[in-house]
Amino acid sequence: MARPVTLYTLQWGDLPLESVCEKAKAFGYDGLELGLPDHVDVRRTDGEYYEGIKSLLKKYELQLYTISSHLVGQAVCDNIDERHQSILPAYIWGDGDPEGVHQRATEEMIRTGYAAKALGVDTVVGFTGSSIWHLLYSFPPVTDAMIKKGYDDFARRFLPILDEYQKLGIRFALEVHPTEIAFDTFSAKRALEAVNYHPAFGFNYDPSHLGYQGVDYVDFIYQFPERIFHVHMKDVHWSDIPKQVGIFGGHVTFGDPRRYWNFRSLGHGKINFEEIIRALNSIGYQGPLSVEWEDSAMDREQGAWESCQLVKKVDFRPSAVAFDACFEKKR
Amino acid sequence: MARPVTLYTLQWGDLPLESVCEKAKAFGYDGLELGLPDHVDVRRTDGEYYEGIKSLLKKYELQLYTISSHLVGQAVCDNIDERHQSILPAYIWGDGDPEGVHQRATEEMIRTGYAAKALGVDTVVGFTGSSIWHLLYSFPPVTDAMIKKGYDDFARRFLPILDEYQKLGIRFALEVHPTEIAFDTFSAKRALEAVNYHPAFGFNYDPSHLGYQGVDYVDFIYQFPERIFHVHMKDVHWSDIPKQVGIFGGHVTFGDPRRYWNFRSLGHGKINFEEIIRALNSIGYQGPLSVEWEDSAMDREQGAWESCQLVKKVDFRPSAVAFDACFEKKR
Amino acid sequence: MARPVTLYTLQWGDLPLESVCEKAKAFGYDGLELGLPDHVDVRRTDGEYYEGIKSLLKKYELQLYTISSHLVGQAVCDNIDERHQSILPAYIWGDGDPEGVHQRATEEMIRTGYAAKALGVDTVVGFTGSSIWHLLYSFPPVTDAMIKKGYDDFARRFLPILDEYQKLGIRFALEVHPTEIAFDTFSAKRALEAVNYHPAFGFNYDPSHLGYQGVDYVDFIYQFPERIFHVHMKDVHWSDIPKQVGIFGGHVTFGDPRRYWNFRSLGHGKINFEEIIRALNSIGYQGPLSVEWEDSAMDREQGAWESCQLVKKVDFRPSAVAFDACFEKKR
Amino acid sequence: MARPVTLYTLQWGDLPLESVCEKAKAFGYDGLELGLPDHVDVRRTDGEYYEGIKSLLKKYELQLYTISSHLVGQAVCDNIDERHQSILPAYIWGDGDPEGVHQRATEEMIRTGYAAKALGVDTVVGFTGSSIWHLLYSFPPVTDAMIKKGYDDFARRFLPILDEYQKLGIRFALEVHPTEIAFDTFSAKRALEAVNYHPAFGFNYDPSHLGYQGVDYVDFIYQFPERIFHVHMKDVHWSDIPKQVGIFGGHVTFGDPRRYWNFRSLGHGKINFEEIIRALNSIGYQGPLSVEWEDSAMDREQGAWESCQLVKKVDFRPSAVAFDACFEKKR
Amino acid sequence: MARPVTLYTLQWGDLPLESVCEKAKAFGYDGLELGLPDHVDVRRTDGEYYEGIKSLLKKYELQLYTISSHLVGQAVCDNIDERHQSILPAYIWGDGDPEGVHQRATEEMIRTGYAAKALGVDTVVGFTGSSIWHLLYSFPPVTDAMIKKGYDDFARRFLPILDEYQKLGIRFALEVHPTEIAFDTFSAKRALEAVNYHPAFGFNYDPSHLGYQGVDYVDFIYQFPERIFHVHMKDVHWSDIPKQVGIFGGHVTFGDPRRYWNFRSLGHGKINFEEIIRALNSIGYQGPLSVEWEDSAMDREQGAWESCQLVKKVDFRPSAVAFDACFEKKR
Amino acid sequence: MARPVTLYTLQWGDLPLESVCEKAKAFGYDGLELGLPDHVDVRRTDGEYYEGIKSLLKKYELQLYTISSHLVGQAVCDNIDERHQSILPAYIWGDGDPEGVHQRATEEMIRTGYAAKALGVDTVVGFTGSSIWHLLYSFPPVTDAMIKKGYDDFARRFLPILDEYQKLGIRFALEVHPTEIAFDTFSAKRALEAVNYHPAFGFNYDPSHLGYQGVDYVDFIYQFPERIFHVHMKDVHWSDIPKQVGIFGGHVTFGDPRRYWNFRSLGHGKINFEEIIRALNSIGYQGPLSVEWEDSAMDREQGAWESCQLVKKVDFRPSAVAFDACFEKKR
Repeated sequence: MARPVTLYTLQWGDLPLESVCEKAKAFGYDGLELGLPDHVDVRRTDGEYYEGIKSLLKKYELQLYTISSHLVGQAVCDNIDERHQSILPAYIWGDGDPEGVHQRATEEMIRTGYAAKALGVDTVVGFTGSSIWHLLYSFPPVTDAMIKKGYDDFARRFLPILDEYQKLGIRFALEVHPTEIAFDTFSAKRALEAVNYHPAFGFNYDPSHLGYQGVDYVDFIYQFPERIFHVHMKDVHWSDIPKQVGIFGGHVTFGDPRRYWNFRSLGHGKINFEEIIRALNSIGYQGPLSVEWEDSAMDREQGAWESCQLVKKVDFRPSAVAFDACFEKKR
Repeated sequence: MARPVTLYTLQWGDLPLESVCEKAKAFGYDGLELGLPDHVDVRRTDGEYYEGIKSLLKKYELQLYTISSHLVGQAVCDNIDERHQSILPAYIWGDGDPEGVHQRATEEMIRTGYAAKALGVDTVVGFTGSSIWHLLYSFPPVTDAMIKKGYDDFARRFLPILDEYQKLGIRFALEVHPTEIAFDTFSAKRALEAVNYHPAFGFNYDPSHLGYQGVDYVDFIYQFPERIFHVHMKDVHWSDIPKQVGIFGGHVTFGDPRRYWNFRSLGHGKINFEEIIRALNSIGYQGPLSVEWEDSAMDREQGAWESCQLVKKVDFRPSAVAFDACFEKKR
Repeated sequence: MARPVTLYTLQWGDLPLESVCEKAKAFGYDGLELGLPDHVDVRRTDGEYYEGIKSLLKKYELQLYTISSHLVGQAVCDNIDERHQSILPAYIWGDGDPEGVHQRATEEMIRTGYAAKALGVDTVVGFTGSSIWHLLYSFPPVTDAMIKKGYDDFARRFLPILDEYQKLGIRFALEVHPTEIAFDTFSAKRALEAVNYHPAFGFNYDPSHLGYQGVDYVDFIYQFPERIFHVHMKDVHWSDIPKQVGIFGGHVTFGDPRRYWNFRSLGHGKINFEEIIRALNSIGYQGPLSVEWEDSAMDREQGAWESCQLVKKVDFRPSAVAFDACFEKKR
Repeated sequence: MARPVTLYTLQWGDLPLESVCEKAKAFGYDGLELGLPDHVDVRRTDGEYYEGIKSLLKKYELQLYTISSHLVGQAVCDNIDERHQSILPAYIWGDGDPEGVHQRATEEMIRTGYAAKALGVDTVVGFTGSSIWHLLYSFPPVTDAMIKKGYDDFARRFLPILDEYQKLGIRFALEVHPTEIAFDTFSAKRALEAVNYHPAFGFNYDPSHLGYQGVDYVDFIYQFPERIFHVHMKDVHWSDIPKQVGIFGGHVTFGDPRRYWNFRSLGHGKINFEEIIRALNSIGYQGPLSVEWEDSAMDREQGAWESCQLVKKVDFRPSAVAFDACFEKKR
Repeated sequence: MARPVTLYTLQWGDLPLESVCEKAKAFGYDGLELGLPDHVDVRRTDGEYYEGIKSLLKKYELQLYTISSHLVGQAVCDNIDERHQSILPAYIWGDGDPEGVHQRATEEMIRTGYAAKALGVDTVVGFTGSSIWHLLYSFPPVTDAMIKKGYDDFARRFLPILDEYQKLGIRFALEVHPTEIAFDTFSAKRALEAVNYHPAFGFNYDPSHLGYQGVDYVDFIYQFPERIFHVHMKDVHWSDIPKQVGIFGGHVTFGDPRRYWNFRSLGHGKINFEEIIRALNSIGYQGPLSVEWEDSAMDREQGAWESCQLVKKVDFRPSAVAFDACFEKKR
Repeated sequence: MARPVTLYTLQWGDLPLESVCEKAKAFGYDGLELGLPDHVDVRRTDGEYYEGIKSLLKKYELQLYTISSHLVGQAVCDNIDERHQSILPAYIWGDGDPEGVHQRATEEMIRTGYAAKALGVDTVVGFTGSSIWHLLYSFPPVTDAMIKKGYDDFARRFLPILDEYQKLGIRFALEVHPTEIAFDTFSAKRALEAVNYHPAFGFNYDPSHLGYQGVDYVDFIYQFPERIFHVHMKDVHWSDIPKQVGIFGGHVTFGDPRRYWNFRSLGHGKINFEEIIRALNSIGYQGPLSVEWEDSAMDREQGAWESCQLVKKVDFRPSAVAFDACFEKKR
């Protein structure tokens, strides 16, 4: 064990924050990654509100490194439709007019930076959405211009957010994930280029979205050593045996046993966390390892408890000296 | 060698049909699968036109089993956008108004049935498009109702076509493929259910769209023994080593060496055609084996020639007797 | 951990029941699966005898879900020879005349149902034997009639037992195993058909007898969701490297290192228990997970202790809610 | 191509020998392995009969290296039952009394040696049967004494045959195969020991019976370099995916698609013939490579033709010089 | 857990022995394998010195089974160059003249035997060096004579040491390792032959030097059942994916992530310790399992602690009885 | 088939060049890669000599693209010992004094450039030798300085040769190979750096020396797209099963069946030539594919004939157009 282990609270949004604190502490976590909008209301501008959150965590001896805004971030670049109404607070959805939703989501993202600062953390994790995700299989043929337009749109919408963050000393960590502007190593590189390697833009590394796609998720870390701002420890399983439902998901629900892949509680999938830790040691990542718990076939509390133990077990400190130094005599 | 081997002419649409006949004959093919709209203009209603095509094929001793309308079929259910203009004839695209495009594409599909009859074939291969393909990764969460709506839309738009086909004695064979209403075993089953197992609806089996997804493409044949109306022999390669661009394609072009998968000329990929032939023998499929040639890294003519030899080599006749019959004495 | 973990006492028949209770408790087990004839004498008809067993288990806080009669069950359908004398009590072997042995074994099986009832359990696990096992490799060629005769024989001999059980509210769970009437998924289905899906007939699922054969042992659970009456947690190893002795066993003893496969203590073989637990969760199996411990190369007590910990570790409760429910806002 | 390629005629017993000659020649074979009893009647003692066979082969320029007696050999040690009636000539079955059948089969085997001599060949390939095959899965537990009895029985029954063969200058090559006294490397060694390494006793090497069992079929050649008397080129497929019917066969017919393994025409299975040729080169085997054709899903004539081409392609001559000899200068 | 678990102190030579004792005890070890020259000065001839070491270990309740002299042993047969100066004590290096170094190293090895005796242990582990290691890839072609010369040199230099050891009742256990006279199974056999199977010569079995080479490290144990004098538990990782630096190491440092293989802390590599324990049980090895800890990417203390737990977990006692003995009735 | 296929004559140095021409032509080759010193005597300075060679090849319609000097090149940087005497012409070995040998080898390499020019070819393939190969396994620990010294030595010795070549318009293609200054991707990069990416320095790509090491031999091509000057088509086999002799070779001869790897005739090993051709197409390599034939277990003439057919079969022309261009309508 070397790095702090945190629990992402998004999947526990049905519980008041204090209950989550209590459970996380009992499960053995060192801290929380607070999920928006359930556990932080970034519209609040009064210092006491944020001090209250900090006190609550302190009471449970839980550290805070990050707050995360997946749902609102998604609405910044996405083509808005009825699905977004179900994931957005009413004050952001408003009348549902797409441009208005984009605008309000953008403002909320900026407010999130201020909230992060008020909470004393330097990293906001989140999604970006994408106006071109639906073009993923290039038939009818997609032109380069159409793809470029998507990345330009992303840059246009996110640069104002990133500039604000930079001023605040906050970094935005995009979780590389299907439906976002970056969903594999190559599209991540293109997203970096789109914002001219803006210093406030980097990644929330989550191997569970890469492995089943056939993406080299360990190599991802070596490709962007300076841009791994945060790490999710989440597992995914893919089958050794071909199935009736393939990677595109067959329009069936997550968790269906006919699927080729499904998210699984850490240690129950195919992600090789050993190699991830070795790569993180190699690039010198010192931040938290945050458990995002998702497994359709396992009890949530058992999973969260077990995942904490597993992360502590799989993590290890890098070596201080070369092991073969011992061969050389000492005089 | 047991079944006729045909060449699908879609990828040769830049050449006049007679040139294609000449080449196909020289490469060793037994027949053609004619690709629309380049090689058959289904707006023609005069018998001579179709007799002309038949004579041309006869001159080169090439058989005809199928005509195929992938591009126009795609426009029946798809959400129409600028990409469709590039794949549709001007008379179908018209002013590009979506409902008008759907309408004209539907009429063209029906006309295609008449053309098939005029040409003396009983199978039309094609695409359907899909109004819900873009929902493939269920985030923001997709409701069951949204998926159902997509299948209902498909049924509403295709049943009139299928009814016409049935009257004509023609079968429609959907190529199970990403971006269509059916793209794996499960969605294929759901498509069948959506049209109540309409007798004129079945599949064009093409393993290249299933294997890289993690779909059991041999099992697909055993799942729908009565509905395999036509077979494409097309190969696909997927990597043993994870890559920078995963299955979702990283918004890069087909053929890029950083991709996890790419189409390849038959025999150069990972599809196990031996098992496919054994399954086709087992369900009693007697139709043609049609080569759809696509490989970004190989010369087209070399590929088409080589593929023909490979199909002839891999195909074999089923056994007439059990091999262990010999053990029983003959009196 | 979710389900009770029990220890099957057959392999501990050399010890008095109280010693086994003591050890099982110390190893961490929640209950026992009592092995016949060593730990229950079903000839006893006095209630006190059974109350005595129940008290003994209660004293050690051990639960009872099942009693098992592998050895006697084997003699019901087997072609009796000298090997059976070594596994049967003298009062069943008698003079060894096959039909007499069958008869006495059958009566004992029925008595076992009464004993189960007296002990308050509803499941008897056991073997059936088979009159056709020796025909497994069809040379000289075996006719369908010969196989049918074997299943008819099984039905004829077991239906009276099953009928009695049904009256008693007891279920018989056949352990699918080489040398029995069912030894893989297909023969299990045929056995069910032979007894017309008798409600008192189902299976004791034990993956160790299926995996090394090349049988899909996870799929087995999905094939018979209503008929998994009991579960054995037992592991088996098969080699990555071909060996001098193959699956047919080379007439050498279990445990020989030249063999291709051998039973192994849980966690030391190749069975994927994770997938088994997920499948059992999926079909809603709520019964015990019973450790049948067999490993020629490991100390019995160490193995039994370790297996209990491993089962508790590998088992988990199913999820109460879908993990992505959290994405939908709460109003 | 280096060694003669022959066709085993057992599976062509429904055709007169001349038809088989005609076909074999047309398929490209260099010779035949004559299958008994269909193509040689060893009861014949007149030289002309055998000269007739030799002339017939000469007419078609086919060589003869071996005659094979699988069916009759099986009856020497097997426990006789109704299945044997179907594979034996009536004059050997007689009244079916086991001891009489053994006796007549033994005499026929000796006569087969004389026939071989009359035909000018020095090798008889065949089966032995086994009185202990049915004990293969040691439950109820099989004692060492029972196995020893089986090998003693084999020695007692076969030594007289082997002694006669030795006098005649004939060698008996047992095809190592399930249901025989030897069915993997270890049981083959034990069979050799049982007859004290009798010089007339060796093996017909056939990898198709070993590979699917998990037996190292290449190593088998290195284990018995002096005892590989004859070689069958036959392929077998086993699944990458576990199945409903395992290696024990589920009491279903060869060829059923639910089985884990099936025989396949050469080149369509998983046997690595390259390694076999390298091993045969290494031990200096100079005899024929004989095609025993069995594939439930392929046309017999197509298979026999193709197999001949494949054997010729896969076989190659050993090197005369070390390849790195060239590095040393020539003076 | 069955055998004592010891820690090899070579990699802890920078610490005084008492600190190592303290740590080893805290980590859970049962004993030490003392590394020379840091923790034993074999030039000492006074009994008190050795009693002091024994007392120190006793104080920490640590056992002693072995002392190890890798660095000095290396200098016995190696072609001496500047690298040896860095690994040898000054009094052995002297003026660096090769023959003088060989001589002094040899004397030190003999003294090491006396030290072992003084410490009450019967095994010295070590290296031999090799005068022919640099010839490993036979280009320019290496003659048999050159290799023979290397083995002769080894015999000439080591037989005097072995003879002394034999008199003292000490055994020398060569760690089979690249750069030594034995580095795989075959060269180990040749080394045994070179010294005529001298009773004082055997091996320190360390799988980490064999696995990545493609050597069957489990079979190694079965090849030399009488010569496994000591066992190192050390792990190694090799990649599933080909790399830029192959097994020959690309002249880069151990631990570089571009390498195909690297040493890893026990449980983090690819060595199958389960199979090793089963093999050691099978040959009856009763000695210690000694952890030699080397991992460039992990903290030494965490690794040593964790390795001790893992060895205790993976080790197990062999079975006293056959598990199927239970099937036989007890009267 | 797309590129010329040539035969490297080094392994045929025992035959006069005209015999080799005759055979190569008969086997189907398009040209030769002439092996020195047997088939070209570069000491000759008279134009007629070279015209004679050109005429001879012309007579047999064989093209010439390269001459190769593996043996002499080896002597430029190697630490010279008795092995070199056996591979060098007497006039280069001379008295065997290392520095003299280096000098004479260097002069011969320069002369080889002139010979190449005289023969009208622009590429010389060869070895460099290495003064640090013997340090490959870093024990005793090798310092960075020692490795640097080796690369400096290489640069010092080869830059004069490369400068001469550049003047002549000749390129030197080092075959990346164990015992050379470059033997995997990383050491190849370091060699390039050592000579400052000298324009006359590049590689002879030969996958057979990379694959068995665990080096990504396809990626090698993408790493050095500008430096692939020549290509050897040579295969190598490595075992699926661990062996008694590992990659370091156990001091046994090439070809021994106990080895983990051995060279094999093209198509009989594990090299994936399909991927190599795709990579060569991708970087635009247009030169010859040269067969260097080495297989200890196969007849040389059979192998050379077969290899030529296989190269022609596996090679293919790149695509002129993107396959999906056809989807876009033609106006």
